[in-house]
Amino acid sequence: MNKSVTDPIKSTKITTKESLYVIKIGGNVIDNSENLYHFLKDFEKLDGFKILVHGGGKVATQVAEDLGIEARLVDGRRITDIETLRVVTMVYGGLINKNIVAQLQRFGNNAIGLTGADGNFIRAKKRPVKTIDYGFVGDIDENSINPDNISRLMEAGFTPVFCAITHDGEGQLLNTNADTIASALAVNLSSLYETTLIYCFEKRGVLQDIDDDDSLIREINPAHYEELKTQRIIHSGMLPKLDNAFTAIACGVQAVIIGKSDELGNLKNNKPFGTRLSKNA
Amino acid sequence: MNKSVTDPIKSTKITTKESLYVIKIGGNVIDNSENLYHFLKDFEKLDGFKILVHGGGKVATQVAEDLGIEARLVDGRRITDIETLRVVTMVYGGLINKNIVAQLQRFGNNAIGLTGADGNFIRAKKRPVKTIDYGFVGDIDENSINPDNISRLMEAGFTPVFCAITHDGEGQLLNTNADTIASALAVNLSSLYETTLIYCFEKRGVLQDIDDDDSLIREINPAHYEELKTQRIIHSGMLPKLDNAFTAIACGVQAVIIGKSDELGNLKNNKPFGTRLSKNA
Repeated sequence: MNKSVTDPIKSTKITTKESLYVIKIGGNVIDNSENLYHFLKDFEKLDGFKILVHGGGKVATQVAEDLGIEARLVDGRRITDIETLRVVTMVYGGLINKNIVAQLQRFGNNAIGLTGADGNFIRAKKRPVKTIDYGFVGDIDENSINPDNISRLMEAGFTPVFCAITHDGEGQLLNTNADTIASALAVNLSSLYETTLIYCFEKRGVLQDIDDDDSLIREINPAHYEELKTQRIIHSGMLPKLDNAFTAIACGVQAVIIGKSDELGNLKNNKPFGTRLSKNA
Repeated sequence: MNKSVTDPIKSTKITTKESLYVIKIGGNVIDNSENLYHFLKDFEKLDGFKILVHGGGKVATQVAEDLGIEARLVDGRRITDIETLRVVTMVYGGLINKNIVAQLQRFGNNAIGLTGADGNFIRAKKRPVKTIDYGFVGDIDENSINPDNISRLMEAGFTPVFCAITHDGEGQLLNTNADTIASALAVNLSSLYETTLIYCFEKRGVLQDIDDDDSLIREINPAHYEELKTQRIIHSGMLPKLDNAFTAIACGVQAVIIGKSDELGNLKNNKPFGTRLSKNA
């Protein structure tokens, strides 16, 4: 967690936090075995502590279909009924998670695959029924994440790989948004580590022009973000993503990077990667 | 791992090993939610370090059937083709394992659900094709189990819950017999812990008369075992189980207990439980 370095001028010890990457990947990486292979290889090479968080992907939908379980949508929102929760537990917690772990081990990374139930790392509350009953969906109890508990696992030499499942502490597993898991982990661990939160998605980062991959914006600070919103360069789907990113930064996360998984290797080579959001960008 | 106690007469420190239970449960516990509930409650109450190993159960067969995957048998032996491996990974590694973990957390046990790929804890070799190609079945590489690696996880406060899956270190998950996983873990950890290996099965233990539950044999040592075999009181299905048990004992395990899961609580209350096999029984 903390390491001591010597100040070269004053010859005194300075205690700095060690670095931690919390990286979230979604369907666009998981569903494409070539993308996944390259991403995991680059993930393994990153220095410092790291945590991987993954969502589902098409395979969950496919398994549900093969089992004859129909997706239930209410007002366009997916419902996690008990049958769907079973599929999610099988596919996220078993099939995807354990295959990622086996690949990481192959590359020499000592990964351990987890849900929030394992190690009691992330507790959540079943979302209360208001107009819609979302079923077995969990909203993370931020206070439940004990950074020392997760740190003990990492300091013992293991790399946590979380899937998008939590528990309520009463024996019930809950389907939980992977972006939120990544952000809650990063915020809570930023008390112990210099934490960078990375969201891999299908674009190279935040683009000035959504149709032009070369229009990547390299850095955004809060003031710049306000301008981009006013100019309507950032709108609709990107807004909640970036709002959450700046909230994480306000809560202690050093920086949030939004980028494309196949460029992750740039981080290791000190080349620019994605769009970097921070207080001082 | 080691604890120091003071010899009351000589006033010197004696170093003793701490105790570890490695407990294996199978379908008869997993398939019955009441049995599983009571077993996990009793498991949580046991003192000392503990590791749980679980096999599959009818749910794996059911999910395979629901997915339209037919069980392939060659000479009466089940084959793990790639489709079956996917089901095993989903059901053992996801559905069963994570629900067990969530229940243990509910009872206050800090469980972590694992395959042999997680933490690189158990590597295996894909069984070589001789007359039969068993498919993705792994035979454990005993030298691959690093007791210090597993001990680091337990000393950090976590209880390992292993399902019957290993990996080959090259990215391939492998279906592996749960009895063998339990025994390999117990043997390898006996260098660090005073280890008792427990197999929960459908009978109360080794019976003099298979139809009489009251004919339980409480203790068997190697000499007694030879007699029981000669008298043909132990035969057929029980032979490999007991042979393996005495091999584990010869390799350092303190004792092997074969008993019924709903009597596990007796251990905590210093009452007799099942049939105890040991060098000095």
